[in-house]
This record gives sequence, structure tokens and C-alpha cells, in this order.
Amino acid sequence: MPLDSDVFQVPPGSSAPQQVHITQGDHEGSAVIVSWVTPAKPGSKEVVYWRENSKENQTATGVVLTYKFYNYTSGYIHHCNISNLEGETSRKFWFTTPPKVGLDVPYTFGLIGDLDLSYADKYPLHNNNRWDTWGRFVERNLAYQPWIWSAGNHDIDFAPEIGEPIPFKPYTNRYYVSYKASGSTSPLRYPIKRGSAYIIVLSAYSAASIYTPQNMWLKQELPKVNRSKTPWLIERVSNIAYNITNGDCTPVRDESAPVYIIIGDGGNQEGLATNMTEPQPDYSAYREASYGHGIFDIKNRTHGYFSWHRNQDGYAVEADQKWFFNRYCNQVDDY
Amino acid sequence: MPLDSDVFQVPPGSSAPQQVHITQGDHEGSAVIVSWVTPAKPGSKEVVYWRENSKENQTATGVVLTYKFYNYTSGYIHHCNISNLEGETSRKFWFTTPPKVGLDVPYTFGLIGDLDLSYADKYPLHNNNRWDTWGRFVERNLAYQPWIWSAGNHDIDFAPEIGEPIPFKPYTNRYYVSYKASGSTSPLRYPIKRGSAYIIVLSAYSAASIYTPQNMWLKQELPKVNRSKTPWLIERVSNIAYNITNGDCTPVRDESAPVYIIIGDGGNQEGLATNMTEPQPDYSAYREASYGHGIFDIKNRTHGYFSWHRNQDGYAVEADQKWFFNRYCNQVDDY
Repeated sequence: MPLDSDVFQVPPGSSAPQQVHITQGDHEGSAVIVSWVTPAKPGSKEVVYWRENSKENQTATGVVLTYKFYNYTSGYIHHCNISNLEGETSRKFWFTTPPKVGLDVPYTFGLIGDLDLSYADKYPLHNNNRWDTWGRFVERNLAYQPWIWSAGNHDIDFAPEIGEPIPFKPYTNRYYVSYKASGSTSPLRYPIKRGSAYIIVLSAYSAASIYTPQNMWLKQELPKVNRSKTPWLIERVSNIAYNITNGDCTPVRDESAPVYIIIGDGGNQEGLATNMTEPQPDYSAYREASYGHGIFDIKNRTHGYFSWHRNQDGYAVEADQKWFFNRYCNQVDDY
Repeated sequence: MPLDSDVFQVPPGSSAPQQVHITQGDHEGSAVIVSWVTPAKPGSKEVVYWRENSKENQTATGVVLTYKFYNYTSGYIHHCNISNLEGETSRKFWFTTPPKVGLDVPYTFGLIGDLDLSYADKYPLHNNNRWDTWGRFVERNLAYQPWIWSAGNHDIDFAPEIGEPIPFKPYTNRYYVSYKASGSTSPLRYPIKRGSAYIIVLSAYSAASIYTPQNMWLKQELPKVNRSKTPWLIERVSNIAYNITNGDCTPVRDESAPVYIIIGDGGNQEGLATNMTEPQPDYSAYREASYGHGIFDIKNRTHGYFSWHRNQDGYAVEADQKWFFNRYCNQVDDY
């Protein structure tokens, strides 16, 4: 897309907020982090919010960050955590908080895989203006519904050759999450609950072997999961080498094992990976290389419905689907 | 050993240098980093040195670091890189620089495995005084011959519960290496040449998957190795999970594969690992749990001799031995 497309357009007005994006702001889903960028001056750190149809405004105050990356200086990046919201409220900015966490709470997640964010690292000097154009591009979606970020390889921005040796500098400045309350020491790993799901986000590009901070954090986080309260335990990690997809291993029957959704068709700079289409092993039902997205629709404690949609077909057409039976509440043989 | 043992003794004098240790100070082996601690005041940053029997002194100036770890404040940690030394000289402090790098240069390495350093992390609040007592203890060896450090799990000192979330803080402050010249951005990974060996030190507790800084550095470092000049390529990493030792895999015949020396008997807090003695698989010649050390004696471009010594037997007794045939210069079937 040319950079003068309307999707990249700077909003009118003097240093108007742009690149608005939201994510869950606490463990339980009763807080929302609202983030935005003002290009020329810091502007207000406040978010004024109110319940739908309420006349009573409330105000939350956030923080402002800037960072430099080689010859690029970011705009003023604002992060404001709005907490103590209650379930199912909505706001002028049009976001809806999730239902209260509960055992049979239905919830529908969209799954976009391999969508590293800006791909700034593919441009000379990791041109960080690409983080801004991308932020404006996705605002039309991201300002209204929270994404649960997990860092991908194109978000590392490791560039010692231009004096930028700190991995994830643009990413962690721009995409703010709630991680400290869980005892995590890095925004690259954090837990959230949403509906009947307990989601643990990990980083495939941080040390994970025994004794490392990530490994130790995961070990102290897992016992906090009460499957009788949040029966769906989801780990979210980018770009793992899955040894069944790559042919190094074959599936085994084990009903106590986790189920993997490997989804990498969100669209990427490198193009479609077609090298795993052939040969098709006997445990594979179907192979096709298309861009698309998944939907994981949790119905209750026992059933979840996964569907996969090609981009070219649009949302309404299911190209593939599978029922998931909860491994804790509904252990059936679905091999 | 009780802490009032003579090996932990503070040397006499006001804030006298203690915990002297040396390591290789550049890629080629013509520099030496001398490190020491002065407890009460910074003292001189200079190292005065001279060739044996020479009347001409030279002076090198170093840096002084201190760090805090919870309620512990370190002494003044000095690191001084003495460069432009030439082969086979020796100094008043009794170190000997290695012979010039070359194809058939014989060189003998001692191999101490699983010797995480101070084990301060096993004491309340990671009592960093243990780093000091350990430093004084090993000075009698380490001040005279360089060690090539590789970080182990007990060197991580990750303690967010006491406000110390930065991994390897004591270790990297105390054990200084030459890493920047190679393009490495972390002291946890660095290359050195010594004799006919090219040694690449890696960190088992840093991210290593594709696209990570460690992975990218290793990929740009490996092509620098010229096996016609340094025929012995050694990678040095702590605590890898070796799938043949743990029984997950069995050996295969492949003369182009690297050979592994898995040595973990340097003595550790946890005691001897006896759980892999039985059952003994048919590819295993002998199993025994003893503390000990190895010696890898490079004879020339084609032959290296590995011997293993039990602590209880002393240095002179070989408990086991094996000839190594260089995989580049002398590819023979030694399966």
C-alpha cells in the first residue's frame, strides 16, 4: 500500500492523538490500557471516560514515553490504564470490557498468527516511522477491541550495527501490558483471564531453559491456574518450531497432552510458506497455503469451536472447523 | 569449609587487593584481563607489569565497577586489560601468555564442568559476600592462570522477590571478558583463540532460538573460523541437556558431526548425580559417579588427548582417556 493511502493518514488537528490501541489492563479483565501517540507535543495524559448513557465522567491519568532508535525519535507514546471498570460496560471509545471471569462464560477469540507487527525491521535503519504508519493503519480495529500481544521475531529490532543492541525496544515502548502484578519481570510474558480462559503469553525470543527468568516465572504462574474456575488454559507464543508440522515428529495418542493450534497465516512480509504442502503425511487431513485467520469460540466449560477462514472468502465462510473438547472438564478421545 | 579458613582470609594491609583473577583479554591471546577487588576504597586502577628479567616497566589503566545487590554493596571491582603482550612472556604476577595462534601449536586445557562459581544464590538474599569469599578462595589458582568462563545456572542471581530482577548482575560485574570486538553485545558470549583452538563461549541461559541476538551472533561468528589456521573448534556452554546422556537419543555414526565432552563433575552444591549410572546402555563403555576434572591436551592439528582424573586419585592418575582425531584435518572413523 502506498504511504499516502488514507489508512496511514495523520488525523487532522494540531498534534492530534493517533495510533490508538487497547489491550487488557489487568489479570481479570476489569481494566483496559488505552495507548496513543501525539506526534508534536506530549499533550494530556488523561483519559476521560464514562459508562454508556451515564452523565458521570471519570478521569484516569497515564504515562508518556518516548524512545530514540538510531536517527528516529518517537512521538509521545501515551499509556493509560483505566481500572475498576465493571463487566459488560462500554465507553465512548467503543470498547467493551469482557464478561466477568467464570466457568461457563462463552467468549470468542480471533486468532491471527504470524502477524509480527510493523515490519519496520525490513526497512533501512529499521525505519521506525513504519511503526507509526502501522499504528495508524490498525487503529481502526485496535482502538475498539483489545489485542493480546505476543512478541514475534520482527519485533526484536536488534540492530547493534547502528547502535541499537537492546531487543524489543520499539515494541515494549509502544505495546504496554499488565505484567508486574503476576510477578513477571518482563512485558514479554504476562497472564490474563478473559471469560472462561486463562491466557499465558510467553516469548519465543527470550531465554526459556530451566533456571531462566521466563522458565521460573512460568513455573510459579501455572499453579495459579484453577481449571475449575477458568477451564480453558491457553498459552500464546509466537513462532514455535512445532515438530509435527515440520515433520520431525508424528502425533501420539495422549488425552492428557495439550492441543496445539498452529496458525501462521496472518500475512507476512516473506509471503506464503508453501514448502510444507507436500508430501502430505497420513495423519494430515488437508493441506492448503492461504492467508486467513482463525476464530476460537468458547461455548462453555466443555466445548469450544475452532473455525478457520480464508481472507479471500471473507468472514462468513468456514474453510475448516473443529470442535475442541475441554481436556479438564470434558476429557473425551478426540484423536 | 568454615569461613575463617585461611583460604578465605583477607590479605593484610589497608584495603589490599584481593580476589585477583585473570582471563584472556582479546581474541588472539595477546592480551590478559587482570581483575581484583579492593574492599574499602577504589585504590589504583593501574597494573604495572614487565617482562621477566626486564628492567622496563609498563603501566596499564583499567576501570572500577561497583554494584549493589539488595542489602549488599560490593567492594571496588577492578578490571584492567593489558594488551600488546607477546607470546610466551611471563610477568611478576606469574601468568604466562599463550603461544601464538597456529596450526600445530600444542596446548593443554583443563576442563572443569558444572563449576558454577560462588553459589551465593544458595544463601539467604543471595548473600553476595559469598562471591567475595569464593573470589579469595580461588585466587591462588585464578591469579596465575586464566580461566575461560561460561555462565552457569547458579550465576544467574535472578531474585525479583528482593528487587534484583536483572540476570547475571554479580557475575557480569565480577568476571570481565573481551566480547565487543567480535560484534557480540553480551559478555555471556565471546570468542577466543588459544594455541590451535578457536573457542566460542555461549550462554545456556540466554535466548538462543532463531532471530535472537545470541543466535545471530553465532551465525556471524562461525564463518570467521578458519579450520586451516585453528583446526580445533571448541564450543563451550554450561549445562546443556545432552540427549544421549539422558537417554532420549542414541548415538549415530556421523563423522562430520561434532564430538561432545560432557563433563559435570567439577563439584557442586547439589552433590553427585548418580541417577544416570543404571541402566547402562550398550553404547556406554563405563559409568561411575565421582568428582573429578578433565584435561584436553592438543598435540597438533590431527591429535588431541583427553584424560579424566578423579579428585580422590590426584592429578597423576588417569581414570579414563581417549584420543581425539581432528574432524577437519584428520577425519578417521573413531566411532
